[in-house]
Order: sequence, then C-alpha cells, then structure tokens
Amino acid sequence: MKFEVTILGSSSSTPIFNRNPSAQLLNVNEKFILIDCGEATQNQLLHFGLKANRIDHIFISHLHGDHYLGLVGLLSSLHLNGRTKPMDIFGPAELLEIIDIQFKHSQTLLRYPLNFRITDPSIKEKILDNYDIVVESFPLDHRIPCTGFRFTEKQRLRKIIKEKIDELDIPSEMIPRIKKGEKFIDKRGNVYLSADLTTEANVPKVYVYCSDTICSWKYLDFIMNADTLYHEATFMNEMLQRAEETFHTTALQAAEIAIKSNAKKLLIGHFSARYKDLNPLLLEAKTLFNSTSLAIEGMTFEI
Amino acid sequence: MKFEVTILGSSSSTPIFNRNPSAQLLNVNEKFILIDCGEATQNQLLHFGLKANRIDHIFISHLHGDHYLGLVGLLSSLHLNGRTKPMDIFGPAELLEIIDIQFKHSQTLLRYPLNFRITDPSIKEKILDNYDIVVESFPLDHRIPCTGFRFTEKQRLRKIIKEKIDELDIPSEMIPRIKKGEKFIDKRGNVYLSADLTTEANVPKVYVYCSDTICSWKYLDFIMNADTLYHEATFMNEMLQRAEETFHTTALQAAEIAIKSNAKKLLIGHFSARYKDLNPLLLEAKTLFNSTSLAIEGMTFEI
Repeated sequence: MKFEVTILGSSSSTPIFNRNPSAQLLNVNEKFILIDCGEATQNQLLHFGLKANRIDHIFISHLHGDHYLGLVGLLSSLHLNGRTKPMDIFGPAELLEIIDIQFKHSQTLLRYPLNFRITDPSIKEKILDNYDIVVESFPLDHRIPCTGFRFTEKQRLRKIIKEKIDELDIPSEMIPRIKKGEKFIDKRGNVYLSADLTTEANVPKVYVYCSDTICSWKYLDFIMNADTLYHEATFMNEMLQRAEETFHTTALQAAEIAIKSNAKKLLIGHFSARYKDLNPLLLEAKTLFNSTSLAIEGMTFEI
Repeated sequence: MKFEVTILGSSSSTPIFNRNPSAQLLNVNEKFILIDCGEATQNQLLHFGLKANRIDHIFISHLHGDHYLGLVGLLSSLHLNGRTKPMDIFGPAELLEIIDIQFKHSQTLLRYPLNFRITDPSIKEKILDNYDIVVESFPLDHRIPCTGFRFTEKQRLRKIIKEKIDELDIPSEMIPRIKKGEKFIDKRGNVYLSADLTTEANVPKVYVYCSDTICSWKYLDFIMNADTLYHEATFMNEMLQRAEETFHTTALQAAEIAIKSNAKKLLIGHFSARYKDLNPLLLEAKTLFNSTSLAIEGMTFEI
C-alpha cells in the first residue's frame, strides 16, 4: 500500500531560488490529496508530471497567500479540462468567500461539484474518514488562525499468501473473507484458519503536517508518534527572536518537537528567502534529530 | 528612449507546455508597467531577471483568472520585500473587492499605498497621462466585460547634437532650454537657433494591447495606427466556430485586424492549450500580414 508525500513547494512567503510556496501531494494508495496550494502549484504539478485531476481532496491550513493563492487557478484549470467528479476542500470558512467571489466575477460555473468543509482552527477534530485514510485537523499557533493536519492510514486487512491460493485452489470470492478472518475449508474437508493463509497487515502509518506555527507545546498532544512529521522551519536558531515575532519556528526547534513528539522521521520546509543554501538548516536540525530531511521541490518521501 | 515589451505569458486559460497565462512587462524609458498578471507572473519576472519592484503601474484587462490570478501574490511579495512607493492599479471595480477580501483575511496591511483606479469597460477613456506615457482603455468584446489598452509615448523634446556642445562651449544649464526651442548666443554674440543645435525628436510610438475578444470591428477605431499591435489569437481559423462561441479570435482574424487598423507590427498570443507547436498559428497570420511575431515567454519586442 502506497503512502508517500511529494513536495511541490518549500518556500515561505514568496517564490525564490526556484523554490515555490507551500504545497504537498500525498499519495494514499494511489488516491491523491493536496495539502496547501501556494501560487503556481498547478505549474509544479505539471513540472513533475503529476496529474492534477487525480486529486480528490484539498486541505488548506490557513489564509496566508503562500498557502492558498494557487487554489482558484487549479480549480479553474480542472473545470476547463473537463473534470466532472467532485472535489472536496477542507479549509477556513473565509476561503469559501474568497473562492466564491472570484468565480462570481469570472462568471464561472464549475462543471464539477465542489464540496467545501469548514475547518475549525480552535479544536482538534476528525474531518475525513474514508476507505483509505482518517484526517484530523488541530490548532497551530500562528499570526492568523491556522490548522495542522494528521493523516492516519486505515487499518488494512491481513495479506493473503499468494502461494496458498494455487496450492489449495482457493476460489477468488473467498479471498476477501479469508483476509477478514474467516476460515477456509477445502473440497476434502480440511480446515485452514485465516492465520494459516495470511500474514499480518501493515501497521497504519501516520503523517503529520505542521505549517506555519510558533514553536509551542500546545499542539504536542495532537502530533504524537508520527511516522513522518513535516514541520515548518522558517529560520535558523540564531534568528529565534525573529521567528517568535513572526510566529514561526527555527530548524533547531523543529528537531526538538520531533523528539518530544516521538516522530520517526522529520521533514523541514517553509524556508525563509534569506537562505539560498538550505544545508545549514538541515545540519542544525540534525544536531538534535538525525532523521531529518529537507522537504524540497520534487522530493518524494515514503511515510 | 526605450519603449519595449517583454512577454511573460502566452497561454490562454491554463499553464501548459512551459507557457504561462497572460502578462507583459512594458518598459517605457526605464519605467515599468505590467499588463495583465496571470498566476505565477512573479515567478516569470524572477525567471527572466526582471525586478518586480520597478513596476509602478499595473493594468488588468478583465477578471478571467488567467489575466489576474497572480496579482495578490505579486502585491504581497512586494509588501514582504519592503516596498514603500505607491502602486497604481487600473482594472474593473470588482478586482478591488477580490484584492480587499484576500488582504482582509490574511490580515495584511500593505506597507505601500495601493491606488486603485476603476476602468470602465463600456467606453474609451484616457486613464493615465504622465511624463512618459498616455494610456487609454477601450471596450473589447468578450464573454465578460473586458478592456483593451492603448499606450502612447509622450512627445519628447528635440535631441541636442552632442558635438555642438563642445564646439560652442554651451553651458549645461542651457541645454534643456535649447531642446525646448530657445536660441543660444555665444560669448562673441553669435546667435544659433535651436534648429541648428538639435535634431527632430522621435515620433511618439503607440502600443495597443487587445486581450480576449471576439474579432469585431467595434473596437477598430480605438486601435488604429499602432506601431505594435498585440492581439489575442487563441485559435487557428479552422476553429473559427469555437473562437466565436468562446468570444476569441483566430490567427487569421488577428492578421485581418492588423491590416484594417493599419498596424506596423503584429504580436499574437493567448494560445489555446490544444497547440503545442505554435508555428502553424504564426504562418496562418503571416499569409495575410507578414510582420507578425509570436508573443512568447521571454521575448522582448521594440515598439
């Protein structure tokens, strides 16, 4: 089962040094989720050969432009390219106003249903629960209301041992039932337990996305035990005061949060335009937490 | 005196084949004007090494996303990068609503004055008249209200003949007066007429920008005698019916308009995503009007 994230933007505020503002594409078992959508996200999707029309869910963390300004363009392009299947968008209530006013003045009537689900930046809540994934939003601590997102894979069924299918001539209609735990009785009356024919399902993995927040322990409970934690790291720690003034986090602090939240891996991003070379940010985080990577454009990380 | 246009976007509707939506940068004597501002225009400026902060005037033709979706991002970046000098924006009244709601929800208070001038898409009117240029807007004929823009260089002063300065030892403070037509009397009392010391000023050049319109003679009067006419040419003429249905123009029609309006040069752009290769569009226009060029990303045309 695939569960991986491709980074489309790593820049804070403005595009610079070929870095784009925030956007990430989550592949959950070949179903696609977009997390944030900075300006030119659709260009990034094209650039990396990723099909925008495969996205069915979009999550927007907050209303600073570098996290959503690409949304109306992306939705328009899907419309113009003939999309008919629904798109579910999760974001602050005011985002719907911003979308509506623009489609009103361009006289655009989308050809596909756009289902808007309002996120509440003051509480933790489950906002999506489908066959593949559970998504929870939770409050971060930024200059304007901002939510993080926690993506938990659904518990999968046990995995059938392929060799047993041929060996015991198991009919295909029995396989889903065996995966669910039923026993199988062959023509001669031999009984096989599900545990004999299957192996353990993968343990569901967790991806946590923390965009734009001051480093704070307020949200620690919501991000515990991530397999992969994405956390913004706008500044080096020598800019701590600036980070606090602007409600952002330093690379060192992001590493501290990874440790305190018991993350297995840390991705850092949302880099300030003052850093052309990002290696110092990576090295700073690694002094505390070695399993850190730079979440930069075009990189794909297995969760 | 410089008067040239650099193309930042040539695509209609969606970004594709490395083509971006509409935007052009006009250099008028080293003062910069942005015409339309599709998504990722700021990326294009960066890409071509053009400084966004040198832009002091922005003209938006209409409210289809491919002509304005890059505006809020550009204005935000200028703010974040410390701009203090004013920006003048000319566009439909509803554009101000779209800008305001986004700055409201991102809690952005621009550090620089943003002067918004409403254009009226139903009439021809002079909307700017400064030291360098006169700009007029005029109605085009599109699915939603849309204006074209006519940029006319200001009449320049006569040009001094440099050799005469040394030869006659003309003091520098006299030069602007001589350019304006005053005579010069040297120490021996010899009188030199302005016409003896200067050559003719350049004839003011005209650039006309016609984005998104069905081919129509309604706007012909407003675009007469352009030195360079930019006209959209979304389709080949074999797609004439589709062009008419969508209120767009074909390459052949753009050439016809260039002839009828007595343009010296024609630039065509706003190409449909169906054309990967643009040469057929160029060749089609050239069958009628040979001085046609493709207005594609990164090209600069002297007007």
